[in-house]
Amino acid sequence: MKTLTAATDPIKDQPSLPPAKDKLLFTPGPLTTSLSVKQAMLHDAGSWHFEFNALVASVRERLLKLAGVARRAGWETVLMQGSGTFGVEAVFQTAVPPNGKVAVLANGAYGQRMVEMLKYARIDHLVLQSPEDIPHAPEQLDDSLRREPAVTHVAMVHCETTTGILNRVEALGRVTHKHRKIFVVDAMSSFGAIPIDLAACGIDFLVSSSNKCVEGVPGFSFVLFRRAVLTACDGYARSLSLDLLGQLKAFDKNGQFRYTPPTHAILAFDQALRELEIEGGVAARGQRYCRNQEVLLRGMSELGFRPFLHPGVQSCIITAFHTPTDSGFSFEVFYRKLSDRGFIIYPGKLTKVDTFRIGSIGRLFPWDMEQLVQAIRGVLMEMSCALPIRS
Amino acid sequence: MKTLTAATDPIKDQPSLPPAKDKLLFTPGPLTTSLSVKQAMLHDAGSWHFEFNALVASVRERLLKLAGVARRAGWETVLMQGSGTFGVEAVFQTAVPPNGKVAVLANGAYGQRMVEMLKYARIDHLVLQSPEDIPHAPEQLDDSLRREPAVTHVAMVHCETTTGILNRVEALGRVTHKHRKIFVVDAMSSFGAIPIDLAACGIDFLVSSSNKCVEGVPGFSFVLFRRAVLTACDGYARSLSLDLLGQLKAFDKNGQFRYTPPTHAILAFDQALRELEIEGGVAARGQRYCRNQEVLLRGMSELGFRPFLHPGVQSCIITAFHTPTDSGFSFEVFYRKLSDRGFIIYPGKLTKVDTFRIGSIGRLFPWDMEQLVQAIRGVLMEMSCALPIRS
Repeated sequence: MKTLTAATDPIKDQPSLPPAKDKLLFTPGPLTTSLSVKQAMLHDAGSWHFEFNALVASVRERLLKLAGVARRAGWETVLMQGSGTFGVEAVFQTAVPPNGKVAVLANGAYGQRMVEMLKYARIDHLVLQSPEDIPHAPEQLDDSLRREPAVTHVAMVHCETTTGILNRVEALGRVTHKHRKIFVVDAMSSFGAIPIDLAACGIDFLVSSSNKCVEGVPGFSFVLFRRAVLTACDGYARSLSLDLLGQLKAFDKNGQFRYTPPTHAILAFDQALRELEIEGGVAARGQRYCRNQEVLLRGMSELGFRPFLHPGVQSCIITAFHTPTDSGFSFEVFYRKLSDRGFIIYPGKLTKVDTFRIGSIGRLFPWDMEQLVQAIRGVLMEMSCALPIRS
Repeated sequence: MKTLTAATDPIKDQPSLPPAKDKLLFTPGPLTTSLSVKQAMLHDAGSWHFEFNALVASVRERLLKLAGVARRAGWETVLMQGSGTFGVEAVFQTAVPPNGKVAVLANGAYGQRMVEMLKYARIDHLVLQSPEDIPHAPEQLDDSLRREPAVTHVAMVHCETTTGILNRVEALGRVTHKHRKIFVVDAMSSFGAIPIDLAACGIDFLVSSSNKCVEGVPGFSFVLFRRAVLTACDGYARSLSLDLLGQLKAFDKNGQFRYTPPTHAILAFDQALRELEIEGGVAARGQRYCRNQEVLLRGMSELGFRPFLHPGVQSCIITAFHTPTDSGFSFEVFYRKLSDRGFIIYPGKLTKVDTFRIGSIGRLFPWDMEQLVQAIRGVLMEMSCALPIRS
């Protein structure tokens, strides 16, 4: 990665030597992955070859198993090239009929992105907006669905990584199911670390991606769905590439992708699934992330940072903190000085109020979070901020 | 890649030990890439981080340079997540106005795929069909465009990898330009190995992908285009993910992808571009592929195989051969026995007549083609086919 490490830091304006190791990513993904996951990409696989097809079949089997659902109970999964956004849009572009109407529960940037997708596809929709720090209320959804009988689909984001808030997927799913609507869940940053009972939640489509809590590399998303719900959608798709049913039919026919898959990212994902199993599955991985988040929260609180969310609604995935009001504090300088020390956090803000975010997912451990907190302390001192910092 | 190599061969029905090296891919892509390209993926990059943004900017600069076009002359490029198909569809979904009409020059599966895309997007179109073994005639395009003034866009495939036929992009482009139509070229399997003078060809949009002649790994496509033509398309896009103009605006704004990019595939591509420069650029790479194809064609002819195409229209990218008529020959057995020996060819047929295809692109050299021919000879003898084989 010569080009990357040879970049000069525009603030210090001095060339930097390549570091001994990659910087750690405390972001919502792409994440820091294990070396063994990356090493699985040191091979070229033939995308139509029977050995690669067998690997894809195995990945799909293990995704179903990881989700706790079975083909005999009507569940299925397909992979979709592109990022997680491509997977969510593939669901809408494929599964909403021409006269369908989608109710989107939005309390952050990713819910808002669903609304954008529907606008682009000229799909009728309505937005059920909650404040960014408040989970959606099942009673309000119930009211809305009673008032809006034309709604055919309800869509929501499980963990809204804008803030790290965890929405109540099971309670909202029960309401959706009661009203007999199709339920679409963006579980991008929760699947693999936060248990989701798909059947109990009444989920019809769940979307996640290769580079989140399964700890693979970016390149594709995957959709878990009720087979009968998708196969009823023949003829709706508005895009060839994003035709989820077309993708399923190709897998059914010969186990192959319709168009070139990211073979290396899939080899990495195969290894990532293996390492998730070794770690002890969803529960164990979630526990590690929770320990990470506890260490972060305790350390940051000691430094004076205030979390944006109430603890009761905070996920273990990512934490938003209020930006300090100390006059010596500049987020840009803070970000770059942390990067110099080998710690990359998310560089922007997505919330309406001024916050910044630190992720606790990926191949990170509590001691990495401790080191991050120590680096933050060092940077604040370098910036001559008084501690604890005002925020 | 334990799962791959531990697969049993259903024909021999005996477990195989992992081989000493990866099988070589004689396919239209994903291809065999260099180890150094794959090793570039042993790093996790932050997709919003300034160092990664600088690398993406450098990749885009070098793509323009490779294409021989300049920003000051109005050219631009963006990367698009997904496979090459996603890139081609992104052009149609973004750049064709609601009342637009696309004339598709089709003489193979990839031209036909463009037609499918237009059907999905409910975009008006007409198909100018040529036989699979005959390049499109500029005079016929001229006639068609005279008869069909409603046409706004002409789309074609440069090297139709269904057969390996090379279409006359420059002559067809001149006709398109004369009629003042937007010209969209799928140069998926030619860009990087066959010189294309974008200006002389009157090209407005050229699409290729990371895993073809640049010899990167799969994960994204890239589109080279006239900036003014794309920016005139505001409001047309029918898909958020595939909104090429949206992608350009994001790059313009802060050098970032709108949605998670395949960071590892981009690191590999950066290295692949470096290796293409080291090899001597487009001309040198094309020469290697031509030498590869010559060795293949000579060797296969000696074994009795007949190429599907006339030499005058055959590209150096991929070669289709008539399937032997020898009663002892079974393509499935042939394919699997070649795979056992470490050589993977394309497993299916895309042409109307019975052919199979062998690619000559990727990190392959004439001696690899010689070894392939020797392996094919050995397999034919094992299958008790008389040589030269009847085809």
